[in-house]
Amino acid sequence: MLAALGAALAVQAADIDMEGLPDTGLDTSAWVTGENPPIDDMIDANDFQFAAKNKLNGRRYAYYRTAALDETTYERNMHDWEKVRMNGFAFQDVSNLNRKTKILGHEFDSPFFIAPAAKAGYTDSSEAERNLVRAAGDSKVLYVPSISASLSIEEIAGAKSDNQIMFHQEYIWENRTQLQDELDRMKSNGFRAVFLTVDNTGVSGVRTRYDRYRTSSESTHAADNSIEALNEIRQMTDLPIVPKGVKTAHDVKLCADLGFPAVYISNHGGRQVDMGVTAIEVLLDLHRDYPEVFGQIEIYADGGVRHASHMLTLISLGVTAVGVGRPFYFANIYGQDGISKLIDIFNTELDSTMRLMGEDNIKSYRGNSTFVSSHQHPRTS
Amino acid sequence: MLAALGAALAVQAADIDMEGLPDTGLDTSAWVTGENPPIDDMIDANDFQFAAKNKLNGRRYAYYRTAALDETTYERNMHDWEKVRMNGFAFQDVSNLNRKTKILGHEFDSPFFIAPAAKAGYTDSSEAERNLVRAAGDSKVLYVPSISASLSIEEIAGAKSDNQIMFHQEYIWENRTQLQDELDRMKSNGFRAVFLTVDNTGVSGVRTRYDRYRTSSESTHAADNSIEALNEIRQMTDLPIVPKGVKTAHDVKLCADLGFPAVYISNHGGRQVDMGVTAIEVLLDLHRDYPEVFGQIEIYADGGVRHASHMLTLISLGVTAVGVGRPFYFANIYGQDGISKLIDIFNTELDSTMRLMGEDNIKSYRGNSTFVSSHQHPRTS
Amino acid sequence: MLAALGAALAVQAADIDMEGLPDTGLDTSAWVTGENPPIDDMIDANDFQFAAKNKLNGRRYAYYRTAALDETTYERNMHDWEKVRMNGFAFQDVSNLNRKTKILGHEFDSPFFIAPAAKAGYTDSSEAERNLVRAAGDSKVLYVPSISASLSIEEIAGAKSDNQIMFHQEYIWENRTQLQDELDRMKSNGFRAVFLTVDNTGVSGVRTRYDRYRTSSESTHAADNSIEALNEIRQMTDLPIVPKGVKTAHDVKLCADLGFPAVYISNHGGRQVDMGVTAIEVLLDLHRDYPEVFGQIEIYADGGVRHASHMLTLISLGVTAVGVGRPFYFANIYGQDGISKLIDIFNTELDSTMRLMGEDNIKSYRGNSTFVSSHQHPRTS
Amino acid sequence: MLAALGAALAVQAADIDMEGLPDTGLDTSAWVTGENPPIDDMIDANDFQFAAKNKLNGRRYAYYRTAALDETTYERNMHDWEKVRMNGFAFQDVSNLNRKTKILGHEFDSPFFIAPAAKAGYTDSSEAERNLVRAAGDSKVLYVPSISASLSIEEIAGAKSDNQIMFHQEYIWENRTQLQDELDRMKSNGFRAVFLTVDNTGVSGVRTRYDRYRTSSESTHAADNSIEALNEIRQMTDLPIVPKGVKTAHDVKLCADLGFPAVYISNHGGRQVDMGVTAIEVLLDLHRDYPEVFGQIEIYADGGVRHASHMLTLISLGVTAVGVGRPFYFANIYGQDGISKLIDIFNTELDSTMRLMGEDNIKSYRGNSTFVSSHQHPRTS
Repeated sequence: MLAALGAALAVQAADIDMEGLPDTGLDTSAWVTGENPPIDDMIDANDFQFAAKNKLNGRRYAYYRTAALDETTYERNMHDWEKVRMNGFAFQDVSNLNRKTKILGHEFDSPFFIAPAAKAGYTDSSEAERNLVRAAGDSKVLYVPSISASLSIEEIAGAKSDNQIMFHQEYIWENRTQLQDELDRMKSNGFRAVFLTVDNTGVSGVRTRYDRYRTSSESTHAADNSIEALNEIRQMTDLPIVPKGVKTAHDVKLCADLGFPAVYISNHGGRQVDMGVTAIEVLLDLHRDYPEVFGQIEIYADGGVRHASHMLTLISLGVTAVGVGRPFYFANIYGQDGISKLIDIFNTELDSTMRLMGEDNIKSYRGNSTFVSSHQHPRTS
Repeated sequence: MLAALGAALAVQAADIDMEGLPDTGLDTSAWVTGENPPIDDMIDANDFQFAAKNKLNGRRYAYYRTAALDETTYERNMHDWEKVRMNGFAFQDVSNLNRKTKILGHEFDSPFFIAPAAKAGYTDSSEAERNLVRAAGDSKVLYVPSISASLSIEEIAGAKSDNQIMFHQEYIWENRTQLQDELDRMKSNGFRAVFLTVDNTGVSGVRTRYDRYRTSSESTHAADNSIEALNEIRQMTDLPIVPKGVKTAHDVKLCADLGFPAVYISNHGGRQVDMGVTAIEVLLDLHRDYPEVFGQIEIYADGGVRHASHMLTLISLGVTAVGVGRPFYFANIYGQDGISKLIDIFNTELDSTMRLMGEDNIKSYRGNSTFVSSHQHPRTS
Repeated sequence: MLAALGAALAVQAADIDMEGLPDTGLDTSAWVTGENPPIDDMIDANDFQFAAKNKLNGRRYAYYRTAALDETTYERNMHDWEKVRMNGFAFQDVSNLNRKTKILGHEFDSPFFIAPAAKAGYTDSSEAERNLVRAAGDSKVLYVPSISASLSIEEIAGAKSDNQIMFHQEYIWENRTQLQDELDRMKSNGFRAVFLTVDNTGVSGVRTRYDRYRTSSESTHAADNSIEALNEIRQMTDLPIVPKGVKTAHDVKLCADLGFPAVYISNHGGRQVDMGVTAIEVLLDLHRDYPEVFGQIEIYADGGVRHASHMLTLISLGVTAVGVGRPFYFANIYGQDGISKLIDIFNTELDSTMRLMGEDNIKSYRGNSTFVSSHQHPRTS
Repeated sequence: MLAALGAALAVQAADIDMEGLPDTGLDTSAWVTGENPPIDDMIDANDFQFAAKNKLNGRRYAYYRTAALDETTYERNMHDWEKVRMNGFAFQDVSNLNRKTKILGHEFDSPFFIAPAAKAGYTDSSEAERNLVRAAGDSKVLYVPSISASLSIEEIAGAKSDNQIMFHQEYIWENRTQLQDELDRMKSNGFRAVFLTVDNTGVSGVRTRYDRYRTSSESTHAADNSIEALNEIRQMTDLPIVPKGVKTAHDVKLCADLGFPAVYISNHGGRQVDMGVTAIEVLLDLHRDYPEVFGQIEIYADGGVRHASHMLTLISLGVTAVGVGRPFYFANIYGQDGISKLIDIFNTELDSTMRLMGEDNIKSYRGNSTFVSSHQHPRTS
């Protein structure tokens, strides 16, 4: 009897709190805490999150996973998809699949990109961001490293394959000398555009989950992000600048009017303002208040994207390319193989969903709201 | 103390995850994992799901149970009923119960049919689909076997009783020789109509739950389901063809205009497009956008139907006959007895609910929205 | 260590599944399964349900607790209150509390009544319904025994105190001799009105939870409840007849037009039509479609009433008196003391809530929707 | 094996029921029941609630935590924030942070105040409310002690620092001699205003959770709170009087018209009327029905405020200062250090959120609904 009892408890001990994410049948009972689960267990993006939670210590997992305050924005990112319904059509020829996507004039094989996030070295201390560069290059997917990466601008650039196109993320540092230096190095190291984060205004969000582990946090970001300050920064480089972290329709329109080539709608993964809005909400506001912007400017967006269905939703609402952040950084516990596998999963999901929706060309989704309509549709638990 | 402790744990060990389905008091504590529970424990359709989950290994259960990606469409199928309210009337004579239903001109004793689903042999390897044929024949219910059945067209036809009417499901194979051959054999084996699945456009949905068990999946379905392709297929047989897997009001109208005798609204049990719509939503869209179709064409529908109340909802919204899939395939763990019992349960529920609603003739429900009104009505957990 | 372990498990073993009812801090850890918990633990109506669940065997508890099919109607009864918001006013004189209520011309001390329900003998086999009669008489509350009571019409009447007013429930039996006999005996035993159940049209709801315990169920109710049949029944007695089990605004209006003195909106505790409507919904429909009925006829209502706040909601929407069913039958595990305690709890809640709402006279609530407005207000879990 | 087993159970035993509050990663596994957890574990307001729950016995915790009946109002207070979305702006200069707030003409360093609540002596029997006075004084935050405090008016006043401004709460006692005496002592002890509770009309709410511990409750509050009675009270002191416990837009407007300098919207932490409204709902009603009041009168509000995001929501809807009750009384288990830490947490959250919203001056939020729009936004569980 004690053996049976021990067995029952052992299963319980191995359980991972899945944080309310959809149950898709993942069996973690054979996983060993602190080790990488078999990569063959990884079937969708959420699986990589559970694997990283199993592998990493609490502090490291919290570093990636944390969000602001009550994590209301984070939860909205993860669950607002449940309010969307997608409309598919049956009587179509879908034999000419095409998901090639131009971003700022550069063609990639997929309409998603690896969004900037800090410290890939926390999952792979030796190769760090190099895994992401190489996997992205192999699959012709855009990767946009963070200026808070574990590796330097030069080290990341050094891992590029021939002809691989990358952009680079940058913060608005209070220290403009540092800012000028980094912008110059991005240019000289071959990065083709800068995603300039505009939502760290002298401070970061209060990230409770991670704050439980740290003792201090100081900001070196500028608090003055006024249009005047922004215009000065635009003089510092001739690389295209894409404001990242815009969170209202008003600011999207402002970016269009200021002549930026693109704008990146993001709530920073729910890590800045709590009780904030999601990309879907901003896009719906744009359709209502400033529909002309879709013809003026390229729009990127991220937040809670875990499936091709999420990507197609955002693209149908007018987005050109969709960012995916945390899942790739979780996948890096497997190194380059993990990144490549997740890219393949997304591509497979895209190919399947596009065909099943009755439209096989990604270009035909862009801004075509026939394929999606927002609808209050709460999932029952 | 240890004995009490062991007993407490034993109960826990025997528990079945009921996946958020309604708690109706089923006690599984005496069930033995891997065996059929007593058939007397089966009181409603969901009970058969729990019984199959108890009996089958994980792979087999997942084969039937799986849905696409995050299973959002599947969950909507199961729970959208909570948004519907039914209006019943008290001062009526309900002593002349009648649930006889004509489908494509053939009369059956019930307004529901056994929807096509693959591999009944996974629950009963010797009799497989023969159980469904025989039970359907005994109860004068329509059964529509799948072309992916465990048994051949001929074997299934061989189990028919005299005068039993059956239709057959078919896929649009890339290989038209195979398609022609199968259509010919359906005709020569006495099937009276073809449910032609139009939502497997060269690919199946990414069914994560089941993909955890399989290593490869290749599609032999055609990717060109254009109207031209469809018109060619219509020349291949003189059996009535009913497009199955239509998922927008637009496509229902198109089927009516193309002169099909009927159309089958289905999201394929949530196994194709995730974040898709339910039959209720398509029907409400039809009432708003194309109300004339209800006079042009017979409409069938399925998705999450587990009770007479669900059937009457769909029928009141304009459906002629309602498909039930997974529950019958779960019930097949008990063979023909299971199928017959589930048919009886549905008939008993229909008789009771129709009388309590104050209308005892199924014909009077069809398209009569007095009996039902959609209403945002989330169940609290 | 094993002792601590056993203790932890013992607590778990004593836990009662509270079925999603509000957590108000009830501690059941000291309760002994199969015995009455201390009556001092009973602080509100739901407590009595948990106590009965602890005391009764599964079959007996299910007999009272069961509802139809997926229990969607039952759940709506219990939780639709979460969609209502009550408006209270501060600057009032509430020193003259008055909850006296006239029902069919008879004055009672409270605006609620004990609704008919079968078999009080299942909780107290010797005194059965006598406990309810006596407690109701002591508190000057209306009790309406069921014709399916454990005791006969005569036995119940025999427990009455002097001047106690009671009505009696009756079914429409197929056997009209039985019906005539019972109506006559109700009259001769001093009952002042008949609550005539009109929602058992030759059949009862499929009550899955209880059906797990029983082997057969036969109905002796008439299936013809047409207006003609009803008019014949009205000739069988000169007692006032109140149709019970009306579930649409249409039928409330019909009862008013047919000249009944009152009508009783009820979905039979969710035991008949699943996916049905609640009293709140019928009342809101009445305000929209037939507002004149509130001046034509007295309206009673029940369904999920567990608190004074629920009573005041229904009364503000136009109801004269509110029925409470299951809680009193659960309370009968304590006999007359339990019934009296629950009456006192409701009266105390009424006195407190009326004063806090700024209106101390129950008459001023009736039909005054200033005090309540329906509002989609789902409780988060 | 038994060791592992014991360890697993030990964790379970140490778990605290977090009552559906947001999971922000708090690890309680090392906490010792009945003792203060390390104050370094306190990262946000909810943490103090869990700490108090761990420290206090059931009766004491219930005393603070209880609410009325089913606690529907309490739950709405805690969760209605999930329906709000905040709009932040990116291109701003936020380098001049200013959260100074004038309340009745007195300037404080924060836009929140410590709301009145009884018996701080239940968490610290020696210092009781003195901790709150001192911490509030150190941080230049308004504290409004309750007349039901553990300490007397004089003892509380005695703990004040030089120049510290405090108001005092008062009830409308049936005994007007007591009322006059207390008002006089508030004046003579230097309190600058009276928060007069107007929602205890001769009775308190039925607070089920706490009623499980107590045997009697008698009210000494007046039941006549009519305007006439109120006007008499206004003659009893020349201190500014602020009605506290107003719960409809109608009564806010009434207070403005009666010439009060301010009004305090509160449902008393959900402890009075169950199924009541939240401050957000009253404010939205005001914007619709009486928008002029925002120019007539200062408005304070409380209920479920646990974060800077909640404060900014209420302020953007027109509130001048926001009350926080229970969290400070829970924090008092740590004495003055606990109160000071919670004030610092709120200030840090305010500084961060204001900057991230793109507006660094608290004055610019007041009544500026650009920053917030109510939106049905249920959190998925």
